[in-house]
Amino acid sequence: MFVAQQLVAVLGRGVVDPDEPLLHADDLGATRGDGVFDAALVVRDENGCTVHHLEAHLARFADSAALLSLPAPDLAAWRELIGEATRAWDVPGEATLKLLWSRGRENSPAEPSGYLTITAVDPAAQVRSRAGISVITCARGHASDAFADAPWLLGGVKSLSYAVNMAARRFAQAQGADDALFVSSDGFLLEGPTAGLIVALDDELVTTPLGATGILPSVTVQVILDAAEAAGVGVRHELVRPEQLRSAQGAWLCSSIKGVLPIVAVDGTPLRHDPAITRTLAASAGF
Amino acid sequence: MFVAQQLVAVLGRGVVDPDEPLLHADDLGATRGDGVFDAALVVRDENGCTVHHLEAHLARFADSAALLSLPAPDLAAWRELIGEATRAWDVPGEATLKLLWSRGRENSPAEPSGYLTITAVDPAAQVRSRAGISVITCARGHASDAFADAPWLLGGVKSLSYAVNMAARRFAQAQGADDALFVSSDGFLLEGPTAGLIVALDDELVTTPLGATGILPSVTVQVILDAAEAAGVGVRHELVRPEQLRSAQGAWLCSSIKGVLPIVAVDGTPLRHDPAITRTLAASAGF
Repeated sequence: MFVAQQLVAVLGRGVVDPDEPLLHADDLGATRGDGVFDAALVVRDENGCTVHHLEAHLARFADSAALLSLPAPDLAAWRELIGEATRAWDVPGEATLKLLWSRGRENSPAEPSGYLTITAVDPAAQVRSRAGISVITCARGHASDAFADAPWLLGGVKSLSYAVNMAARRFAQAQGADDALFVSSDGFLLEGPTAGLIVALDDELVTTPLGATGILPSVTVQVILDAAEAAGVGVRHELVRPEQLRSAQGAWLCSSIKGVLPIVAVDGTPLRHDPAITRTLAASAGF
Repeated sequence: MFVAQQLVAVLGRGVVDPDEPLLHADDLGATRGDGVFDAALVVRDENGCTVHHLEAHLARFADSAALLSLPAPDLAAWRELIGEATRAWDVPGEATLKLLWSRGRENSPAEPSGYLTITAVDPAAQVRSRAGISVITCARGHASDAFADAPWLLGGVKSLSYAVNMAARRFAQAQGADDALFVSSDGFLLEGPTAGLIVALDDELVTTPLGATGILPSVTVQVILDAAEAAGVGVRHELVRPEQLRSAQGAWLCSSIKGVLPIVAVDGTPLRHDPAITRTLAASAGF
């Protein structure tokens, strides 16, 4: 079994012992899932440590905080903490950098809790999932326009309230699949529990529209679409039905950490999969 | 400003210093909202400390854990910890007992984190809200039957992923109301962010059906309905539309901590309110 190594660093304190308790019993992040996070890929090789697309992740982190009415994170201070943490991180290979910003303690003068973790990723699991994953469609419970004019539903917020996302993945894995793929109540594909979706249809790349769908803006999807557009490939933000996957040239779950994962089966039905397209998309996102 | 006093006690350790950090940086309760909680009213008077409806709360706590595929909490151990904590709690008046049970650390041999807090309640706020509250209806984003056959949506689970509930309350309060009242996409009243709903219609008490609606089974609502039934009052689990409130004899948000709160206005429109009925309902729930 792979046992992950981990580093923890706290805003205002720096790197701390990961086995030292950090959060108070009444931290609203822990009692209400009332906070935001973001996650980026860290790669350590002989040249040092690189955080992939750090600025895009910091921008999304700040957007999430604003949408949750949290104080704005001081991005300069976060960059400094990330620098200190990545200099201290000495595990070769891929790792997850996670930034967390909660509303802080309920029963003390309210000040957000900010900290980061760097956690080594199991290389065998990365290789396996990048070769192809099977998914099970799971109802998300809402229509594809449910988040319009309803900011309290926290559409587009990478919040600490991810219990449903984790439960959907557990459900899919209990059925023998690798992950879940959320579907709206009006029958459109949305996103994975921790990944965005790209479908190749008629030689164009199609992804779920942001905004009213409530999905999270995927950094990896955006990087891939930008590169595709620059290369002259058509790109559309458009809702896709599960039935359209049958005629698709491919479909991918895209995540900053896991990379570009070709979906090879949906609800047990095989999907077309061209490894050459996957390689192109993955390379354009830096994988 | 009211500054709450607080006690913290940890399963397997007993009462600890509330200002001592307790949770690790990678506790899945704090990073994913992946855990459950329950909350009960504690009253300390000259005869000692009483936890209201403790067994009903423990039963719901265990149900939540099972629905989230967490290990079953050892209720005998929890009763013992609650006994120790309430003996140590010496603040007169009302307080909130909160039990928390998260999936534990992500990067260590997985064992749930279990702890409780007791936090004094601001008596002035209790008096104010029990006199009557105004609510604003907020879309919940899903239909009233969205949770049927979708266990991953965690209907009926009192999970740590409460960011939407907290955001809806903040939204309502920013509009000058006291709380939010969730409405399904097909136009039915559901529940409050932390409270169940009772509506008096045609001399009967009506509450939102459990199950497919995804609402939380309210201990207070159940106690009131049981008492009403025993007293010969008609009781129905039935979906109610906001328009029906106009002809209602009253409507109440019911919470174990806050009590039985008459809704005196919905979206700015006054609602009928008979203090005698409120007193009867509150007394039947022990308030």
